[in-house]
Amino acid sequence: MKKKVRDFINHNKTFIKFIYALIVLNIIALILESYEELNAQYSHIFYYFELFSVAIFTVEYFIRIWVSDKTKEDKKERLNFAFSTLGIIDLIAILPFYLPFIFPIDLRIVRILRLFRLLRIFKLSRYSKSLKTIQYIFKEVKGELSITVFVTFVLMILSSTLMYYIEHDDQPEQFASIGDAFWWSVATLTTVGYGDVYPVTGLGKLLSGIIALIGIGFVALPTGIISSAFIAKIQAEKKQKKKKTMCNCPHCGKNFDL
Amino acid sequence: MKKKVRDFINHNKTFIKFIYALIVLNIIALILESYEELNAQYSHIFYYFELFSVAIFTVEYFIRIWVSDKTKEDKKERLNFAFSTLGIIDLIAILPFYLPFIFPIDLRIVRILRLFRLLRIFKLSRYSKSLKTIQYIFKEVKGELSITVFVTFVLMILSSTLMYYIEHDDQPEQFASIGDAFWWSVATLTTVGYGDVYPVTGLGKLLSGIIALIGIGFVALPTGIISSAFIAKIQAEKKQKKKKTMCNCPHCGKNFDL
Amino acid sequence: MKKKVRDFINHNKTFIKFIYALIVLNIIALILESYEELNAQYSHIFYYFELFSVAIFTVEYFIRIWVSDKTKEDKKERLNFAFSTLGIIDLIAILPFYLPFIFPIDLRIVRILRLFRLLRIFKLSRYSKSLKTIQYIFKEVKGELSITVFVTFVLMILSSTLMYYIEHDDQPEQFASIGDAFWWSVATLTTVGYGDVYPVTGLGKLLSGIIALIGIGFVALPTGIISSAFIAKIQAEKKQKKKKTMCNCPHCGKNFDL
Amino acid sequence: MKKKVRDFINHNKTFIKFIYALIVLNIIALILESYEELNAQYSHIFYYFELFSVAIFTVEYFIRIWVSDKTKEDKKERLNFAFSTLGIIDLIAILPFYLPFIFPIDLRIVRILRLFRLLRIFKLSRYSKSLKTIQYIFKEVKGELSITVFVTFVLMILSSTLMYYIEHDDQPEQFASIGDAFWWSVATLTTVGYGDVYPVTGLGKLLSGIIALIGIGFVALPTGIISSAFIAKIQAEKKQKKKKTMCNCPHCGKNFDL
Repeated sequence: MKKKVRDFINHNKTFIKFIYALIVLNIIALILESYEELNAQYSHIFYYFELFSVAIFTVEYFIRIWVSDKTKEDKKERLNFAFSTLGIIDLIAILPFYLPFIFPIDLRIVRILRLFRLLRIFKLSRYSKSLKTIQYIFKEVKGELSITVFVTFVLMILSSTLMYYIEHDDQPEQFASIGDAFWWSVATLTTVGYGDVYPVTGLGKLLSGIIALIGIGFVALPTGIISSAFIAKIQAEKKQKKKKTMCNCPHCGKNFDL
Repeated sequence: MKKKVRDFINHNKTFIKFIYALIVLNIIALILESYEELNAQYSHIFYYFELFSVAIFTVEYFIRIWVSDKTKEDKKERLNFAFSTLGIIDLIAILPFYLPFIFPIDLRIVRILRLFRLLRIFKLSRYSKSLKTIQYIFKEVKGELSITVFVTFVLMILSSTLMYYIEHDDQPEQFASIGDAFWWSVATLTTVGYGDVYPVTGLGKLLSGIIALIGIGFVALPTGIISSAFIAKIQAEKKQKKKKTMCNCPHCGKNFDL
Repeated sequence: MKKKVRDFINHNKTFIKFIYALIVLNIIALILESYEELNAQYSHIFYYFELFSVAIFTVEYFIRIWVSDKTKEDKKERLNFAFSTLGIIDLIAILPFYLPFIFPIDLRIVRILRLFRLLRIFKLSRYSKSLKTIQYIFKEVKGELSITVFVTFVLMILSSTLMYYIEHDDQPEQFASIGDAFWWSVATLTTVGYGDVYPVTGLGKLLSGIIALIGIGFVALPTGIISSAFIAKIQAEKKQKKKKTMCNCPHCGKNFDL
Repeated sequence: MKKKVRDFINHNKTFIKFIYALIVLNIIALILESYEELNAQYSHIFYYFELFSVAIFTVEYFIRIWVSDKTKEDKKERLNFAFSTLGIIDLIAILPFYLPFIFPIDLRIVRILRLFRLLRIFKLSRYSKSLKTIQYIFKEVKGELSITVFVTFVLMILSSTLMYYIEHDDQPEQFASIGDAFWWSVATLTTVGYGDVYPVTGLGKLLSGIIALIGIGFVALPTGIISSAFIAKIQAEKKQKKKKTMCNCPHCGKNFDL
């Protein structure tokens, strides 16, 4: 019977779609709650929906623990599931609801705890191949990514320290510390450029221009690398699908692989 | 005779150029009309030009329906055309002009209906290979695109929810709801950065910086993937054009073209 | 003797470097002149330098015309040079200096004419392989570029027309016409985002977000395509440099190409 | 014994990690010092940490010079190290600390000298393969990079000169000189777009839009080229790791590894 339940929660399409829909509705509820008028008017609906969701997710969690031992009654396999990434996500997604019942908690912390509901979005990853592909790609280019991330970080420290020394005297508030200059550095090198911090001195503009021209390249490198890896994977998969080119010799009529 | 007409509207270069020119002029008229002085001064010219265009497009539409049955008088083929993407575009591009004559319509809705003239731009796609190439490319990388779009969407929801909780107390107007935070998220992750919304708290800036550095990569991935697919297609086409591969048969030792 | 002169102006390294330096100095002078204090204080130096440059460039221009006939005294070959891109650039780079002497010209037009000095920068392209490589790359991907440029243009017209209708009532000045909305569209789709124009209505923000997410991909496509073409060219050149892999059979000791 | 010391400072993992940690702590200290409250309160801690770091780095520097002669007591090899990039970085990273003790220095210059501590970050590069990979990649695409950098530079000069002439009269402060227009040009072509300078005239907006659409492609080219080169390198390394190619000799028909 346990096997049947396991198959049901892992492969039954209706059940999977139901869990998917519930997760998506949870996220929508979370977003709608942030609108004060909606929250004031429909707070009880939000509350009952949360109650319903937590109930489902709790039952689902315990069933998953129960069926996680594939061979026999095996505590080790159950612990393995409980401490796997997905198991922990499942737990954290429901735990904050129960905590205030177990022991008194400061209201401010309750508010932060409620934010953990956001983690329910990662429950989507259980049946999704997307994250596996992305994981694979990231492993593939780990070495190149770490190089560029390191260089980017050095570039940011260098540029923000220099800009702090150059601009601090003219804009003591905008460039109050190297930390503030770092904020400028991020906004510039990612080319977001909100416009809340920018150099005003001639030297600052010169340096900022040079840093921008060099730096945006490095910050954009990881994207380039990852997308190339994506395409390389697609092309490799296509090649595998193609049959080997069979070659027929018109002179002797025999076939051979090229 | 029907065959001649069909050949004429599909292959006659002068006719195609005339329709092209008319579409382009329609778009230009639409843009010029938005300038209030021009609209006030030359409203009758705009009106007569619209009248002329709709007349042409209407005649063109009915001819296209008439000639759409390739074999005999066949209603099914005509319906096929009428409900094809191009057929519907052709209809919607002229229909709004006639609607107010058929039954009274609120003036505000008339204004929206007039916007449908914009769809005439898609009539350009009839003779264009561009859209077919783009369609092909999109099919090719559909899987990869959907992965990255999904991840981007999750990233946006996560970041805007977090930013809402962090910045709401300090900027109750800018971050009034998660929806508003979403607007910040789009502006940041696309690196547009208008500068109307940005974090002001230390924690918000820290998180925003991390999100920007990670997120822009994901948002830019689709572009990288599509452009790689474009290039792969070009290179494949070139290879096909190249000389046929000379092939040496290992059985009889003779050469032949593959 | 004409052959010697031709070789001198085309291949003599000292002469080429001198012309290069003169062009670069001309650009620097043009930039420095824009600083009012410098212009006021050193106007005579700028004037004499301009005089000197024009004299050199004029002599160079006539020599180039004189030596442009490679076989004999041939007017046709000379005309060919005079009407080649480089010949016309050479002429326009000096002509504005002489025009006011020939017939009286409005001072405002003189100022615009002076701007033509900027074209001297293109004289750099004579000896440069860079532009040839770029020209080659552009030819290579002409088809793909035109597709993406066309789609980008359609996207811009669609988005700016829609935004005009949505935002016009709330921001009559920022979105006074579709032309103004086009300015917003360019700033958004290129992700520059100065922050002088942005949507304020909910619908405008929604549409703007969707357009940004889709549109920036298309606008960035040409870059991706061109850079891929660049790399494809590099790799092709490398392959050509590599020798054919000589293969030595360890069984029979004979060599053959793989 | 010298050999042992050399092995120790170059290969002992504990020593290398200690130096790494010290460098990272130095950078953190440099950043924290910029916060005025922290600097006021803990200035003595910063001072003693600086004292300690300089002592270590000085001893390290002299040991490195001592062990730099691999064969015998050889002054030439020591000088080679002293004037190598890493040797000079090691020296400059400590020298500014000693200068004020040797001869009196203006306090403003002392402040600039203190900035040289930032160079200690490059001491990280001694054991890092990252920079070698990056150096290799840059050499690989040097030719293509120089082309695009040159074209970018020409584009920037052209656009800033034109914008200066167009916008100067309407925004005499923002576009006071071509230098200021250059700042606009950098902010636009890198798509940072702070929003402190932007065109306001119709002609300026038109030109700016065209420049942006064309220019951002060129400015983004180097990134595309470098990331493609990165990926090409990864793929080449993977191929080498793969099984040796099986090769079939057409003369005797036997197989062998290539």
